Amino acid sequence: MLSLREHIKSAVSNKTAIGHFNACTIDGIWAIADAAKEMNLPVIVGASEGERDYVGVRQLAAIVKSIREERGQAIFLNADHTYSFERVKEAIDIGFDSVIFDGAQLPMNENIIITKKCVDYARSCSQKNGRDILIEGELGYIGTSSKMLNEIPAGAITKEEHMTKPEDALRFVRETGVHMLAPAVGNVHGIIRGGDPVLNIKRIGLIGETVAIPLVLHGASGNSAEDIRGAIKAGIAIVHVNTELRLAYRAGLMKSLSEDTEEISPYKYLKPAKLAMRKVVEEKLKIVSGL
Amino acid sequence: MLSLREHIKSAVSNKTAIGHFNACTIDGIWAIADAAKEMNLPVIVGASEGERDYVGVRQLAAIVKSIREERGQAIFLNADHTYSFERVKEAIDIGFDSVIFDGAQLPMNENIIITKKCVDYARSCSQKNGRDILIEGELGYIGTSSKMLNEIPAGAITKEEHMTKPEDALRFVRETGVHMLAPAVGNVHGIIRGGDPVLNIKRIGLIGETVAIPLVLHGASGNSAEDIRGAIKAGIAIVHVNTELRLAYRAGLMKSLSEDTEEISPYKYLKPAKLAMRKVVEEKLKIVSGL
Repeated sequence: MLSLREHIKSAVSNKTAIGHFNACTIDGIWAIADAAKEMNLPVIVGASEGERDYVGVRQLAAIVKSIREERGQAIFLNADHTYSFERVKEAIDIGFDSVIFDGAQLPMNENIIITKKCVDYARSCSQKNGRDILIEGELGYIGTSSKMLNEIPAGAITKEEHMTKPEDALRFVRETGVHMLAPAVGNVHGIIRGGDPVLNIKRIGLIGETVAIPLVLHGASGNSAEDIRGAIKAGIAIVHVNTELRLAYRAGLMKSLSEDTEEISPYKYLKPAKLAMRKVVEEKLKIVSGL
Repeated sequence: MLSLREHIKSAVSNKTAIGHFNACTIDGIWAIADAAKEMNLPVIVGASEGERDYVGVRQLAAIVKSIREERGQAIFLNADHTYSFERVKEAIDIGFDSVIFDGAQLPMNENIIITKKCVDYARSCSQKNGRDILIEGELGYIGTSSKMLNEIPAGAITKEEHMTKPEDALRFVRETGVHMLAPAVGNVHGIIRGGDPVLNIKRIGLIGETVAIPLVLHGASGNSAEDIRGAIKAGIAIVHVNTELRLAYRAGLMKSLSEDTEEISPYKYLKPAKLAMRKVVEEKLKIVSGL
């Protein structure tokens, strides 16, 4: 079976991207796994610190591993936005395929020091046990909440002059050795009521050409299919979606609970929520895979 | 760590029982695990065919194994009500600690034939790999639904003259070699609006003395604490609760969803549901453990 690194390489050379979807329920993981299996595409399940604490860090790894082994499916597990070396180490030790150290709110130098420490640790583990663990770094703050927002989160970068600069990205990549980079290019976490800012495709292209490593688009919920396709052509190799999945899951759940007020079996009233989430995963996978 | 068989033996000799709680969500499993850990009691997570299909049979086994190993906790996994040898075999092969073949609706002879086949298969696996797998048999139909019911389910046994007879139980146990037996002694699945029938403690005692293997009380949701305590004194070693957990989970979820209509993170709006379920697990564990 191909590694995540190989799948990313293949996506880059095909000018497509891999979908990254967050989950914190078992049926959410199945929504992602089933959609990707049906479409015969590789997929990444992501979990923030809060999401993985709810599932259980070890349990999440056990679930994804067991789906991968049972089906021979190219399903990978990413520790989304991780804010300390300790939690990066935890995810690596437990068996995650990739980890994001999110130092976007730290001063650049500090971000570099900790990101490099994460890369060094992942490399030492790879050398010891042959597992290929990828580290993603972040440069440029884009907010933290995967929800509906009335306005752009305070401090999130949307003006072109504040977006990640190719020269900063190059320094960051050279000094840390990260395998992937998440830049701030007009993307924001969550969905802004009234519309997300448009992505700066040109900037993505410039950063991509400069750093020559795969780029990751966070906060793609709320971005148009056209914007996402443009970003992929410009160098994005992984596209993160969370808020839209959460909206679909809650809407499916509310509908199901209100339609049958007597049903108390979770697996019966949760199923429509799972299927609603799966539908969004399928739509996004179509966009990122160019199907 | 003690095996499930040893924990049951210990419960029997202390005139207590082990709690068996159903789950089909990851947070439901945590509700059970956390309550039992806090109280330092062994516990069984159960999943019916429908429940385990929703979680994933292998994934369920992986989750419980990973909690057991991570915490060194005495948490076991039971394949609740299984209606074919094929599905019994599946659960055994995948690593469940115990399996219930439910042939209560079959003619006695047929029930004996399939139950024995399950026992033989479990024994051959135990001999091969040293795992101690327990098989539970059922004698006497008590309904199948874990929900609120307006009346006793059609065909469920509640009249004393139809309840499991000690002599039938003895024949069943001798001819099948089952490790545990679930009799029909006034218990019904689900909760009957207007009140569940009272348990026939005397009959439990007679069956227990006759078969000399641990007895299992299904459908204990809706039974009074006094009735459950009496049943344990008379020979019940495992007490099953599901409907009351489902009611608590749904009530906690409805409250949480209605109190914050903007919250879309599943791990935030599901948490109160998990905690409500955990509270019921704790109450039931107090009753069955004599705390």
